[in-house]
Amino acid sequence: MPISSVCQSPDNSLKKKRAFITGIGGFAGSFLAEELLSHGYHVSGALMRAATTENIKSIQNNLELFRLDILNADRTQQVISKLQPDYIFHLAALASVGKSFSMERLTYRINVEGTLNILQTADVLSRLKKMVFVGSADCYGIFSPKNKTLTEDQPLNPISPYGISKAAAEQLCRYYAQQRNVPVTIARSFNHCGPRQTENFVVPDFARQIAAIELGLQKPRMAVGDLGARRDFSDVRDIVRGYRLLAEDGHPGRSYQLCSGRAVAIKTVLNTLLGFTTKKVRVVTDRTRLRKSNIPILRGSNQRAVQELGYISRYNLKATLYNTFEYWITKLSSS
Amino acid sequence: MPISSVCQSPDNSLKKKRAFITGIGGFAGSFLAEELLSHGYHVSGALMRAATTENIKSIQNNLELFRLDILNADRTQQVISKLQPDYIFHLAALASVGKSFSMERLTYRINVEGTLNILQTADVLSRLKKMVFVGSADCYGIFSPKNKTLTEDQPLNPISPYGISKAAAEQLCRYYAQQRNVPVTIARSFNHCGPRQTENFVVPDFARQIAAIELGLQKPRMAVGDLGARRDFSDVRDIVRGYRLLAEDGHPGRSYQLCSGRAVAIKTVLNTLLGFTTKKVRVVTDRTRLRKSNIPILRGSNQRAVQELGYISRYNLKATLYNTFEYWITKLSSS
Repeated sequence: MPISSVCQSPDNSLKKKRAFITGIGGFAGSFLAEELLSHGYHVSGALMRAATTENIKSIQNNLELFRLDILNADRTQQVISKLQPDYIFHLAALASVGKSFSMERLTYRINVEGTLNILQTADVLSRLKKMVFVGSADCYGIFSPKNKTLTEDQPLNPISPYGISKAAAEQLCRYYAQQRNVPVTIARSFNHCGPRQTENFVVPDFARQIAAIELGLQKPRMAVGDLGARRDFSDVRDIVRGYRLLAEDGHPGRSYQLCSGRAVAIKTVLNTLLGFTTKKVRVVTDRTRLRKSNIPILRGSNQRAVQELGYISRYNLKATLYNTFEYWITKLSSS
Repeated sequence: MPISSVCQSPDNSLKKKRAFITGIGGFAGSFLAEELLSHGYHVSGALMRAATTENIKSIQNNLELFRLDILNADRTQQVISKLQPDYIFHLAALASVGKSFSMERLTYRINVEGTLNILQTADVLSRLKKMVFVGSADCYGIFSPKNKTLTEDQPLNPISPYGISKAAAEQLCRYYAQQRNVPVTIARSFNHCGPRQTENFVVPDFARQIAAIELGLQKPRMAVGDLGARRDFSDVRDIVRGYRLLAEDGHPGRSYQLCSGRAVAIKTVLNTLLGFTTKKVRVVTDRTRLRKSNIPILRGSNQRAVQELGYISRYNLKATLYNTFEYWITKLSSS
């Protein structure tokens, strides 16, 4: 019997844990859907009207999908209330720091007011066991000393509209947990990468360029921005496992850093990716890409997630980068 | 020559420092308008369409007033750009913690997105010297130990939609100061009271009831909520002087606590006000008013404002409470 018919059987699906994912068609959303399906969940989710289903096409028959704008409060409540999920994973967001500078209003609307709409829905659901809100290490902003390993107790001092919006949305979640008893727990995700991530982010930007060069679609010359910063990278598949663990064991109102605990220079990421091509590549600094970071090193402690959730990083960065490179090779070959 | 014609003279008004106040018809807004007029500023300001001008009727001829919804970004920019103020004082807000619980969406819209609209306007003004954003001690939320004296370095952990909105708006201001060079400075005001404050707040609520009893308009029996909390009360006229000093000397991107440095029990406020009536009043606890505070003591240090701005509290609380009582006697007598 194919998985799809199992999911569509009402009797059977009632016995399963029911999960609802906002942003299910996105980078992390699609991997989370796979993670939950493989752990026996019934999985439904929402995509923006214009969003592509490319990331979930291989599992689409096993999913219940809805076109939903989370800024439409009434319809959001309608759709989710009808589904009566046990778990909500709120991933839908304007997720690019870079874009948030020029799209401030939309960033606050989607990331803060959108989260309010999900929380208000969660507040009226009768069988909700847990809501997982996906926040970001960008909510920390500036801190000192500049090379410290961050813990969840670090005060939030965000310096981008994206970071400000995620910090505010976390505060909404804590308010709903503490004052209204909504069982919402908070993932504070550090950088993560892997296949399917859009090229607005540094790793897929590099991987796509190098794959294009490998395929002869681009001259052996690639443009890069600031290579000096160091970031704490995880594989997206580790991060979404963290989301599942949070749904199962996360404490309401508490934030959990999901990260590897190591900081790697962007230059190291580049050199690792360059190792996958047979071509000799000339690397050129593109001044338009030089948004100099005020945060030279971003490295988190994952101790709380390890101790309370049993979170571990299973993927090493080289494997993740190779998978990402392969993804772009396939994608560019078929387009 | 009456002041009004001085203000309307274009030649003369060009030599004056030009101030624009959002929420000019409100409690603090009206006192700030008086403070600035008495210090030689040309004063203009915006009121919501439905807002009363009662608080500013005695100075209305000396003001340039506009009906403006700050959520209308285009018109906000249009009105303020035409005025080309040297100083913007952004006071317009949904300012009641109590109301914010039932009006979350509006709280975030007005207090965060409204502030974004003012900041985006400030960003394009050519002669702006300073913008003063009025934040609140409610952005601190829960802290420990519970009786500590707060400084501006205290992490923000707000527990009401109002507090969350003011914390987020402060972060927007810091972002505009640090990343876009908008000269915006931040007042973090603690409780303030005085004439004209609406009875949604504890001091005018008590003062109005006691004035009504004094006038024989209410039986000598008054309803109160939790009297145990201690708060740092200032006179509104001290606080608005702080706003003027911030415009003149406040550091962009920095927050300044405006407060007295002393915490007074709500019970003491009540007893002081009861001392002003000749009637014997029976005080009854009204369970519907018992929104038990998670913050038993709220007391700030005003050291930064004192040192950097020369801020001092001129009014003692008893005088402020007496002025408030007199205000309600007059108001209730004439209605």
